[in-house]
Amino acid sequence: MGERDWISRYFAPLVASPGAAALRDDVAELSTPSGPVIATVDALVEGVHFFPDDPVDTIARKLVRANVSDIIAKGARPLEALLTLGWPGTRPEEQLARFAAALGDELSSWGIRLIGGDTTASPQGLFLSLTLTGQSGPGGVIRRSGAQAGDRLWVTGAIGAALLGYRALRDGRVDDPHVAAYREPQLAPLAITGLLRDCATGSMDVSDGLLGDARMLAEASGLSVTVDLDAVPYAGGASTLEERLALASWGDDYQVLFAAPESVTSRILAYAGEEGIKVTQIGSFASGAGLTACMDGARVNLPERLGFEHG
Amino acid sequence: MGERDWISRYFAPLVASPGAAALRDDVAELSTPSGPVIATVDALVEGVHFFPDDPVDTIARKLVRANVSDIIAKGARPLEALLTLGWPGTRPEEQLARFAAALGDELSSWGIRLIGGDTTASPQGLFLSLTLTGQSGPGGVIRRSGAQAGDRLWVTGAIGAALLGYRALRDGRVDDPHVAAYREPQLAPLAITGLLRDCATGSMDVSDGLLGDARMLAEASGLSVTVDLDAVPYAGGASTLEERLALASWGDDYQVLFAAPESVTSRILAYAGEEGIKVTQIGSFASGAGLTACMDGARVNLPERLGFEHG
Repeated sequence: MGERDWISRYFAPLVASPGAAALRDDVAELSTPSGPVIATVDALVEGVHFFPDDPVDTIARKLVRANVSDIIAKGARPLEALLTLGWPGTRPEEQLARFAAALGDELSSWGIRLIGGDTTASPQGLFLSLTLTGQSGPGGVIRRSGAQAGDRLWVTGAIGAALLGYRALRDGRVDDPHVAAYREPQLAPLAITGLLRDCATGSMDVSDGLLGDARMLAEASGLSVTVDLDAVPYAGGASTLEERLALASWGDDYQVLFAAPESVTSRILAYAGEEGIKVTQIGSFASGAGLTACMDGARVNLPERLGFEHG
Repeated sequence: MGERDWISRYFAPLVASPGAAALRDDVAELSTPSGPVIATVDALVEGVHFFPDDPVDTIARKLVRANVSDIIAKGARPLEALLTLGWPGTRPEEQLARFAAALGDELSSWGIRLIGGDTTASPQGLFLSLTLTGQSGPGGVIRRSGAQAGDRLWVTGAIGAALLGYRALRDGRVDDPHVAAYREPQLAPLAITGLLRDCATGSMDVSDGLLGDARMLAEASGLSVTVDLDAVPYAGGASTLEERLALASWGDDYQVLFAAPESVTSRILAYAGEEGIKVTQIGSFASGAGLTACMDGARVNLPERLGFEHG
C-alpha cells in the first residue's frame, strides 16, 4: 500500500481541524491563539526507545506523551501535532491501523489536533517523530531559568517506573506491573499547568533522569540544588543507595520537575489535592552551582554520569 | 558522543532566535506574525530518499529544500524549523559536523531560524525529519483547490532532473551533471511567492511526479486538466513519449505547479522575467474530471500509475 493510501485510510479520519484541509494539501494552518505559541519535537526509534515487539498502540501513546510532557511542563496547553512516520514493509497493515487508532485516541484525550505529517517507507525499523505546539499561559512560557535561591524543588508522580519496566522486558518478565509504565508513561494530568502557572518559578520535564535534570534546572537558573534521596517518590520503593541512584538517573519518567518559593508550599499541596495530582517536595535551591544529593542526613557521592542519554 | 554534546557542539551555534533559548529549554517559542502561520513536515530516509554514500551536506540541503518547496508553493515565506535527526553510530563525528554546517548554511539562505529539535541514535541508517513553518501572504494560503475552469497550468524550472540524477547514481555515473539535481534539488527562488500571491488561483509543489500532481490539483479544484507534453520543460530534453512520461511521473522535482487565469499570462511572464524565474505554461483546466495528456496534437494513453511514491 502506498503512502497516499495510508494517509487517506488511516490518518485523514483523525483530522478535524479545518486548517489541515483533511491532510489533502501540502501544508496546514496553525491556530493563532492570543499569547505565545511554543513547539517541541520528540522522536521514538525502534530498538532505542521501544522494543521491536512492543504493541504498536503503546508506541503511539508513548510518542504523544513524550511530547505532551514537554509542553505541560512549561505550563502550556497542547494544541496541534504533525507526525512523521517511517514504517517498515515488514510490519503488516493491521499494525498500522492499530497504531493510527491509538494515536487518534491519545491525541484527542489531550485535546490535540493532528494537522499534518509525512509517511515514508523505512528500510529497517520503525521510527516516529511528532512535532507538537502548545499555548502558554498569560504569564508566558515557564522556562528552566527562573528558579530563585531558597526555592523548593518538586516533582510529580513517581520516579524510575520506566527503568523497572525496561528491566522486566529485557529479562522477559512481560507480566511485571512496571512494563505498562515503560510502554505508556503516566504523565501528570493537564491540570498541572494551572499549578505551574500559579506557583512555579522554573520547570522542565524529567526525561533524562531526575538527578541530571535537577542539575540542569539549577544550572539554567544560575543556582545549586540539593536533592533529598529519602524524599524522592521511587516507583517500587527503592531503599538502597545504589538502586535509588539507578532509578533517579534513568530516563523516560516524563514527570514535571519544578521550582517554587517556600511560601506557596501549602497552595501547591491544596491545588494538587483538589486535582488529584501527586506532587512531592524533594529538595531546594541555593546560591552557588552544582548538584548535591543527601541520604540519611549525609551527603552521598554521585557517579560522574547522571543523565540518561539514548545512544 | 552523547546527544547533549551533539546539540551544544553542532546545533546550538546555528540558533539565533531568542525564542529558542539556544536549544537549552524543552520548547521553543514560535514567532507570531500577523496573518496565518502554516506548517509542513518532510522526512528523508537513507536508502529511500538518498543513497547511503551521498555526501551529508547534500542531504542537509535536500531536507531543507523539500520542506521549503511546500511552503513557497503556497505563496508563503519560510519562518522557523524544528529538526529530528536519527544518527547511526557508524557515521563519524566529522560527518555530523559537515551536516550541521550545511544545514545552518541552507537554512540561513532562506531566512529560516532553527528553533528546536530532537537528536537520537539510529540502529540502522540515517533518517531526518524537518518541521517548517511559514507566513502566508495577506490573501491567505494558496490552496490546491482554487483553480477555475479556463485557468492555465504553469510549472517552474525543469521536470525530471532528479530521475536523471538517480539513474546516473544507480549506474555509477557519479560525474553526470544531473547528479547534483538529485542530491540538491534546485527550487524556484523565494520571489516565486510574489508571483503566486499576485496571480495563482491554486498551487502545489511537484514532489510526486508532474502528471499525478497535476491530476491532484485538478481534483482538489473539482476540474479536469490537460497537459501538453510538448510544452513541458524536461531536464535533458526528452523527445520520446516513453521518456517524457518517465520524467513527468518521477518525484523529487520540487518545482511549483500552479493555476492562473489566462488574463494574467503577460503579467506572469513579465514578473518571471524581472525576477529570473523560469516559468512555462504547460496546460489548462476545464470543467469535468480527470487528466488528459497530449503530444503532437493527439491524446496519449497514460499508464495507470502516475505518481511517484517512495516505498
